[in-house]
Amino acid sequence: MIKKKISNKTIERLSRYLRYLTYLELEGKTRVDSKELAELALVSPALLRKDLSHFGGFGKSGYGYDINHLKLNIEKILNTFEPKRFIITGAGNIGTALANYIYFEKLNFHLSAIFDCDPKKIDKKIGKNNVLDSKSLGNYLEKNKVDIAILTTPKESVRSVYSLLVDKKIPAIWNFAPVDLPSTEKTYVINEHLSKNLLVLSYYLKSS
Amino acid sequence: MIKKKISNKTIERLSRYLRYLTYLELEGKTRVDSKELAELALVSPALLRKDLSHFGGFGKSGYGYDINHLKLNIEKILNTFEPKRFIITGAGNIGTALANYIYFEKLNFHLSAIFDCDPKKIDKKIGKNNVLDSKSLGNYLEKNKVDIAILTTPKESVRSVYSLLVDKKIPAIWNFAPVDLPSTEKTYVINEHLSKNLLVLSYYLKSS
Repeated sequence: MIKKKISNKTIERLSRYLRYLTYLELEGKTRVDSKELAELALVSPALLRKDLSHFGGFGKSGYGYDINHLKLNIEKILNTFEPKRFIITGAGNIGTALANYIYFEKLNFHLSAIFDCDPKKIDKKIGKNNVLDSKSLGNYLEKNKVDIAILTTPKESVRSVYSLLVDKKIPAIWNFAPVDLPSTEKTYVINEHLSKNLLVLSYYLKSS
Repeated sequence: MIKKKISNKTIERLSRYLRYLTYLELEGKTRVDSKELAELALVSPALLRKDLSHFGGFGKSGYGYDINHLKLNIEKILNTFEPKRFIITGAGNIGTALANYIYFEKLNFHLSAIFDCDPKKIDKKIGKNNVLDSKSLGNYLEKNKVDIAILTTPKESVRSVYSLLVDKKIPAIWNFAPVDLPSTEKTYVINEHLSKNLLVLSYYLKSS
């Protein structure tokens, strides 16, 4: 089991800072003060400074943060320097949307293959990839390095895909199927619950 | 601002229990013990019992939980009895995937309209809905009750859509655009970060 060092909430905030730093850089800016960056990311300036000082403190008093320097450091923490290769199993609506989500590419995550078992979908083009037959998944995993597998398979078939991925020691799985899959010693799993935030909103609507 | 009573993490677990109770019911079962339900939801039986006892304790020792009774109680807590109407702004990949995501309907969330400003997308059919012109959004909101607006608009136009929704006092916004939008007194906003879990995996890959 892989050890956790910084909390998922901190990772989320860091990824937010990274996004706004990228936007500011695109606007031609070279530095930003903590107040401005905190406002964009909807956090308090104190929390922002705390988050960043935790990693060595990249700001200078009265100058703010050097955008490029801070960006590089966050990328180092989040490990997005080295390109990552991911596959998607399931070429349905969610699989297709994720295959076409351009921000992943910007973060250095590259889709290398997409699989489906439906003959109507096999060989169809999604973005730059042709959909491959799910039957060839085992063979593909033996011949190609895959860092992350995104599962958008229906719940009926997700456990067999999962077993194959665990068997081939794929290091990370991001599971969108509506079944919770456990992490194993070699494979770290995040179970995504797309409807969770809808239910959070529903709960808030009740309390309002 | 709407007051928060139970944590988002608890809401997430409740929504997971609800999902498995639905599966068990479909299999024709009428009761389940805490151990079995906890195993499916990947939580400890102790945590499951704690979560449920918090709302009055629906289990009987030696009998387990009555599936139908527990399901109804969780639905009551999550406020999914009353149907909710949502709209989607943005008929791109994510908007289309969410429009076709059948589980929302099962949770009693009903898509009433989808909007886009691209003439090539307007009038195109997505599921049961024809894409409407974004220009008609303000008018639509005046004439129809909308509980939740899902934003999948590009970041360039999301702030103007947001202003309109806040102006019309739409109670809840689920924002997928890569810009963090604040909640207001009348409008509760959840900013979804689709790439967050990918970065969490990336971070874990580094530490492994």
